[in-house]
Amino acid sequence: MNNQTWKEKLGVYLVIGIEDAGGRTALETVRLAIAGGADAVQLREKHAPLSRVLEVGREMRALCREHGVPFIVNDRVDVALLLDADGVHVGQDDLPASEVRKLVDGRMFIGVSASSTEEARNALAQGADYLGVGSIYATSSKADAGDPVTPALIGEIRKFSDVPIVAIGGITGDNCPEVMKQGANGVAVISAIVGQPDPRQAAARLREVVASCTLE
Amino acid sequence: MNNQTWKEKLGVYLVIGIEDAGGRTALETVRLAIAGGADAVQLREKHAPLSRVLEVGREMRALCREHGVPFIVNDRVDVALLLDADGVHVGQDDLPASEVRKLVDGRMFIGVSASSTEEARNALAQGADYLGVGSIYATSSKADAGDPVTPALIGEIRKFSDVPIVAIGGITGDNCPEVMKQGANGVAVISAIVGQPDPRQAAARLREVVASCTLE
Repeated sequence: MNNQTWKEKLGVYLVIGIEDAGGRTALETVRLAIAGGADAVQLREKHAPLSRVLEVGREMRALCREHGVPFIVNDRVDVALLLDADGVHVGQDDLPASEVRKLVDGRMFIGVSASSTEEARNALAQGADYLGVGSIYATSSKADAGDPVTPALIGEIRKFSDVPIVAIGGITGDNCPEVMKQGANGVAVISAIVGQPDPRQAAARLREVVASCTLE
Repeated sequence: MNNQTWKEKLGVYLVIGIEDAGGRTALETVRLAIAGGADAVQLREKHAPLSRVLEVGREMRALCREHGVPFIVNDRVDVALLLDADGVHVGQDDLPASEVRKLVDGRMFIGVSASSTEEARNALAQGADYLGVGSIYATSSKADAGDPVTPALIGEIRKFSDVPIVAIGGITGDNCPEVMKQGANGVAVISAIVGQPDPRQAAARLREVVASCTLE
């Protein structure tokens, strides 16, 4: 997946683990989300045995490849390498982007979470290819998400950076326009898709709202 | 570090994180342990931000190299690669040895934790270069150590394998002979060295007991 391709594909960015949710396997949720219009998929699994993560991850990776959807692995660069991911995403307590680059240079793009302009500047100085900014709204899906920041942070970061920005944390179809109009390129969601009665429809609605907010 | 070298250097195997303990930095404890006779050092850090782990890890790695002591990283193969470790050690919930080998082949030896003959056989089938067997005795240093196994498990595994076996879990100078006479090549310890009033002396005593139990 080349540089230009993935950058245009972060609009509706699904973050998902490997466990069943809402009576569906994670793989089925990914399948439905992609069918509905999800642009990117991040595997974020902090608890399961890694043999299981690789097992489910390989299927998820194949599904994403089949549909031309960037597949990103959270935190573990070793797992990202084994799954031949398109990208790797790291938080502030994970490996710094500059170190990640030593392991994946030329093979993967690198996303970094930022919850302040300072963190964003540091991430960019370390070579982040995109930023995940949040947590924007209170969220129940990520226990370690920290205090919410305001959508305006996206606008502040946009002033000094032109890398793609994905807003994360409690994003829904309803509040999505608030972050998009601050200059976000997309929205990363867990619970707005995972465990929803109809993940396909949920993804389609987000896709529609994101598309309507994207400046041409 | 070649194959023969490290295999002879697992007698007193120190497992340590990056936090201070007993009023000393982890680095100072490693320095004293090596001075006392520790043969190998495993960096096992599950909580600290990885930027800190890399920072302390690089110093620990340099110290081990200076003294010809194998430096092993627990769980994270990405961190092991960045620290140019001699070995990587994985538990049952970590990456399987066969997957680890894809990432490190020819660069590092691979240790696997086993708490049953079945786990040991699986680890060997996946290409483990040595086994960490335990937890032998009740231990407070490792919250996820599981129920203790008996020293006799080492003898059972020794019957079908000639890879080095390191006993782990509550090992002290006093009970160390019990596992050595079952055929262990060495003992992995945390609290028998870390946080002791005199880590150097503690390591020296373990070294002496291990040496006296090692069959020529």
